[in-house]
Amino acid sequence: MNAWKEGWFTEESNGLWDGESKNLKVKQVLYHKKSEFQDVLVFESESYGNVLALDGAIQATEKDECAYQEMACHLPLVTVGHEPKRVCIIGGGDGGCVREVLKHSSIEEVVLCEIDKEVIEAAKKFLPTMSCGLEDPRVKVINADGAAYLKQHKNYFDVIINDCSDPIECAQVLFSKDFFITCREALVPNGIFSQQSETLWLHLDFISNLKKDLEQVFDQAKYAYVSTPTYPGGLLGFLVCSTNPDMDPSVPRRIESWYNKLDEKTKDSLKYYTDKLHTASFHLPAFAAKKLNQF
Amino acid sequence: MNAWKEGWFTEESNGLWDGESKNLKVKQVLYHKKSEFQDVLVFESESYGNVLALDGAIQATEKDECAYQEMACHLPLVTVGHEPKRVCIIGGGDGGCVREVLKHSSIEEVVLCEIDKEVIEAAKKFLPTMSCGLEDPRVKVINADGAAYLKQHKNYFDVIINDCSDPIECAQVLFSKDFFITCREALVPNGIFSQQSETLWLHLDFISNLKKDLEQVFDQAKYAYVSTPTYPGGLLGFLVCSTNPDMDPSVPRRIESWYNKLDEKTKDSLKYYTDKLHTASFHLPAFAAKKLNQF
Repeated sequence: MNAWKEGWFTEESNGLWDGESKNLKVKQVLYHKKSEFQDVLVFESESYGNVLALDGAIQATEKDECAYQEMACHLPLVTVGHEPKRVCIIGGGDGGCVREVLKHSSIEEVVLCEIDKEVIEAAKKFLPTMSCGLEDPRVKVINADGAAYLKQHKNYFDVIINDCSDPIECAQVLFSKDFFITCREALVPNGIFSQQSETLWLHLDFISNLKKDLEQVFDQAKYAYVSTPTYPGGLLGFLVCSTNPDMDPSVPRRIESWYNKLDEKTKDSLKYYTDKLHTASFHLPAFAAKKLNQF
Repeated sequence: MNAWKEGWFTEESNGLWDGESKNLKVKQVLYHKKSEFQDVLVFESESYGNVLALDGAIQATEKDECAYQEMACHLPLVTVGHEPKRVCIIGGGDGGCVREVLKHSSIEEVVLCEIDKEVIEAAKKFLPTMSCGLEDPRVKVINADGAAYLKQHKNYFDVIINDCSDPIECAQVLFSKDFFITCREALVPNGIFSQQSETLWLHLDFISNLKKDLEQVFDQAKYAYVSTPTYPGGLLGFLVCSTNPDMDPSVPRRIESWYNKLDEKTKDSLKYYTDKLHTASFHLPAFAAKKLNQF
């Protein structure tokens, strides 16, 4: 654990944020295991609650995970034109996305395709506010390769959420055009795909190419971003993709049928997502709007 | 310089972001002086261009300063209902805000009230893309206390921008109700005041109290935020305040008369601000919207 210095965790660059790094003060290490796929670490931090890091990169902290998880799920789930019943999440072993998807009462089945069992084990033990939905009877956890699973489920899902880690090592394949084709084929007509898409400040060329790839596979792809203090660049984005040329993926179609009809408890559980923020998140800084041709 | 370790600059907490810190890799130190007021440092970083730090806290980097400076200026300047002629900037010695204010062709006078000469000197030498407007004949640089200067200019400015550093040490007074009253009195009718207001993720209680103070002095105050990768919390906000109960400070009144009429070169110089982002920046994450009662 060379990332530890005098009680601090340092998030060294994995090649995607060279020249900068972030330190979080550690209260105690809760879980640390080398799994078949990666280094899995959970520690209690001084100011961000419990923190999950994979291969040394922060994936989620209790303090700010609401931002990423809520937007990763509700952007596609509120965009889809019909009541979503079946959702597939690729990655996302911490369970935060499952928790959010279950806030849509129309959901009958959530498949979590997390290749690494150890991530789920760590989350169940030490990230209970994220993993709380994993025992729900509508949830099916598959410890398998996402692409292989989706190939067996053509024309099946209303929404697919690619909640993967950075495009290096084993996650690289989840940013490939082949994988996107598999996702599109696994969607029902008018289904929506959402792709974790890195940060505008650091990876704009990468995002621009990713968007072009997605636009070749899907009918439309639009970038939305969310404020994430513990990710490099301070924000993270999604490319939300539609399978219908007339379906703008930045339009929240289910505000009336979902958001406005939420019971008080569920609405209160949304710490980040709002109806207005949904639309606002697609309005990019000028430098990004120009590069991604999204005005 | 105890913040330096093996070629990295570490931004230690000044009490406002305990438990976390950020590291930037240093190519070379360009300027380092202990001024009458603070430690003034400019260094060339590996991935964010030249960086200005005051008392060890990052104020501006060439890579991302566009976000803060453009929004700090254009939010109030596009909100004001009339063509703004006179603007006062408190702090802002790097010159970035002056540069942005001058993009409004109606401007006749910009007063920069920067108490610390050394900041201006450092910026002129090593941050030319920020300080480029300081020699403009419409600009008046005053090395004096902002409050004292404004007290002598009642009913004078169309817009006042409080571009101050964190609310500690000598900047603390710039977050006081007495100072806000001085600002209100220095504004013409329907003038707009914009206050640097820290980050939602780390200082929500502080911001909530600040907003209440401002609402007692001004007629309305609304919080807007901007993505700032090099500030703790990954975002920074402004409380934009109006001096007219019918003037909502989140409404961009001069999109037609300013933004839509910009010549191509000036519009192209806007790296962050867009008309849509103006409105979007006031749509807060749910946790902040609730606390600040801003929906």
